[in-house]
Amino acid sequence: MSAEPPIGPERPAGLPPSRIEALADGIFAVAMTILVLDLHVPELLRDAPDASIEANLAQLGPKALSYVSGFVILGTLWVGHHYLMHHLRRVDRSFLWINLLFLLAISFLPFVIALIGAFGPRKISCLLYGATLVVAGSCLLGQWRYAARSRRLVSEGLSAAEYSALHGRILYGVLGYGLGLALAPLWPVLSLCCYAAVPVVYLLPGRIDRHVAARAN
Amino acid sequence: MSAEPPIGPERPAGLPPSRIEALADGIFAVAMTILVLDLHVPELLRDAPDASIEANLAQLGPKALSYVSGFVILGTLWVGHHYLMHHLRRVDRSFLWINLLFLLAISFLPFVIALIGAFGPRKISCLLYGATLVVAGSCLLGQWRYAARSRRLVSEGLSAAEYSALHGRILYGVLGYGLGLALAPLWPVLSLCCYAAVPVVYLLPGRIDRHVAARAN
Amino acid sequence: MSAEPPIGPERPAGLPPSRIEALADGIFAVAMTILVLDLHVPELLRDAPDASIEANLAQLGPKALSYVSGFVILGTLWVGHHYLMHHLRRVDRSFLWINLLFLLAISFLPFVIALIGAFGPRKISCLLYGATLVVAGSCLLGQWRYAARSRRLVSEGLSAAEYSALHGRILYGVLGYGLGLALAPLWPVLSLCCYAAVPVVYLLPGRIDRHVAARAN
Amino acid sequence: MSAEPPIGPERPAGLPPSRIEALADGIFAVAMTILVLDLHVPELLRDAPDASIEANLAQLGPKALSYVSGFVILGTLWVGHHYLMHHLRRVDRSFLWINLLFLLAISFLPFVIALIGAFGPRKISCLLYGATLVVAGSCLLGQWRYAARSRRLVSEGLSAAEYSALHGRILYGVLGYGLGLALAPLWPVLSLCCYAAVPVVYLLPGRIDRHVAARAN
Repeated sequence: MSAEPPIGPERPAGLPPSRIEALADGIFAVAMTILVLDLHVPELLRDAPDASIEANLAQLGPKALSYVSGFVILGTLWVGHHYLMHHLRRVDRSFLWINLLFLLAISFLPFVIALIGAFGPRKISCLLYGATLVVAGSCLLGQWRYAARSRRLVSEGLSAAEYSALHGRILYGVLGYGLGLALAPLWPVLSLCCYAAVPVVYLLPGRIDRHVAARAN
Repeated sequence: MSAEPPIGPERPAGLPPSRIEALADGIFAVAMTILVLDLHVPELLRDAPDASIEANLAQLGPKALSYVSGFVILGTLWVGHHYLMHHLRRVDRSFLWINLLFLLAISFLPFVIALIGAFGPRKISCLLYGATLVVAGSCLLGQWRYAARSRRLVSEGLSAAEYSALHGRILYGVLGYGLGLALAPLWPVLSLCCYAAVPVVYLLPGRIDRHVAARAN
Repeated sequence: MSAEPPIGPERPAGLPPSRIEALADGIFAVAMTILVLDLHVPELLRDAPDASIEANLAQLGPKALSYVSGFVILGTLWVGHHYLMHHLRRVDRSFLWINLLFLLAISFLPFVIALIGAFGPRKISCLLYGATLVVAGSCLLGQWRYAARSRRLVSEGLSAAEYSALHGRILYGVLGYGLGLALAPLWPVLSLCCYAAVPVVYLLPGRIDRHVAARAN
Repeated sequence: MSAEPPIGPERPAGLPPSRIEALADGIFAVAMTILVLDLHVPELLRDAPDASIEANLAQLGPKALSYVSGFVILGTLWVGHHYLMHHLRRVDRSFLWINLLFLLAISFLPFVIALIGAFGPRKISCLLYGATLVVAGSCLLGQWRYAARSRRLVSEGLSAAEYSALHGRILYGVLGYGLGLALAPLWPVLSLCCYAAVPVVYLLPGRIDRHVAARAN
């Protein structure tokens, strides 16, 4: 490689982030799509009357709710990962491993979502849900702090305001899911509402969006 | 990032569309491939006679039809998404969220297709099929209007003719699927034919293809 | 877009091939990975003796053979698609639709492979296997002829030798799978051997590889 | 293509490595995500008491352990593939085929991991686990030697130190998994511990990371 031209500021040393994104996009895509496998087609005869098919489908309501809410939560985490990776110039081995822990949590979510779908808000399922979400959010937070606080894997030019805008955005999610986790032992229903409510705030654009829109990357 | 060279017209500010495409391609790929999981290999002994295997396979006919038709409908929606994203220069948070709603509808289609495969054209399954398709089409339409009408996320140079060519193309699908949905309560069979017929028109190139072929993006 | 700089020879008009590749890679990846879902872990008690686990695993032999051979056949088709797309400069709507038919055949293969795994070489399963492979190969051939014979979607500079090298390579597969299909009604075992033998030739580099190696694309 | 500009050092002849990466990322993503499908939600009534749900979940412990450990092992192999492909400038047919064998081993791992999850460390499952891991590692080693020893598919400038740094890193894994395989017939538990211990070393950065960090690719 020594024969190649010198590297400009836009092609820094280190591993490029593109394959992490590809693996993450793949794992998110599979996790978000297999959620629907938990909605089983009613096991009735082919010529069952409409009324009995409809009655069976109506019983899928809680599972459908769990699937939609889980899809949105996964979508939120994907958007967070998207914003984070958008700022990265390179990755290193430590970053890869925090990212794998993040993806382990993502791949575990379909099981937890199916558990909620099967038994509704129970102590154990809300604890598992919350713990997985807190782990996923903490990994995002850890990745961002590791990559960006000392400008290790991002551009030197990242401003403190940009750093803290994304940091605050991720921290909000960790705290929100943490609150849900704290509620789980005593009030599983409240805990579940908490998990479903956190993504709503992410719908609104924030400081980070103004930064991203203001300048190219 | 301030240390980097100024941004030319080909690298605008904002999030690049590439990862949305990657997530969408992943979700489409999984959704289109898991359709086949609904075709179950007949549960017969390994040394069952040919005739009984063939008789069991023949019973899979309706499921196979539902799978092929569903694959084509998903393919149509992927092609629509492909054309839409092709014109985008950047994305923002609102666009990401409309896109997630679109992908939620996509991920739900395998369930609806399996439902049609299991019970044939019924009122409830045709309603669900049509509603999901109308939501998916409306999201595409909403994404295009949001992104392109005021040139928010596309190039300034997008002509009004190009805008309306793709708009009309997507609107046709929404109306077609909407017609099927309106037929579902009374004539489920007609409704299903409607869903299957819509993609046929998409086979033909239209104005949008002449625009895309005429100039690079 | 009119405000943008004129297009150089390396950025032609029309849709770029990259998203077709992404969807295809996704569908191939899912199809190749879900083959293993057909190998079921024996349903025995957790403390079943080693001997009974081993005896149950031994019965998976035919399914494992079917899985390995199917994986290799899918891999062959992916390599063919890879070589074909490598030469493309742009795609159009007709190409997208031939490609979707190709991907429909790919997505159907896991079912056929599971059928062979369940009942061994039978007339009906060998007919289905062969027909699907012939459709997939014919789509590749059709895509190549459509894209390259009149240089519609490839570079003007594609030589006749390069065109016919890949054409011959794909045609060989169609003919090989067609031979297997012709054998299926009378000699299913021979037919299956034929399907398994075709990829072996693809292991060897051919004229197309010298062309690809000789010049950049 | 003859009409195109001459190829600079950064765009060499031959197939680009990007689609191999896309297929590999897809297969890894699916394999890593379907591991969780082996954790079945307990089949209890919707209103089962908390205690019985929790008791059933506790029985999933060994499966969960197997899933986490398998996810990490798959992650390790993905990281290895990532580092290897990072150095490649082009690929050829032989490389594609070694890579497909590698991916076959990857796609087989979910079955082996489910086997360990179902019956714990048994002779047959530890043999299968070890054999698959040794095949996967040997493929990586073979790909690297094929691609890089005579600088066939990498840059001319790859230093001997860089070559041997990655070679040693991959060889360590093959030997570690080989040791586990050798232990399997007599001490399945030790064998399993060996498989789980190998990735721990990969957590630590090594010589290869200093090389990658030191210069751009």
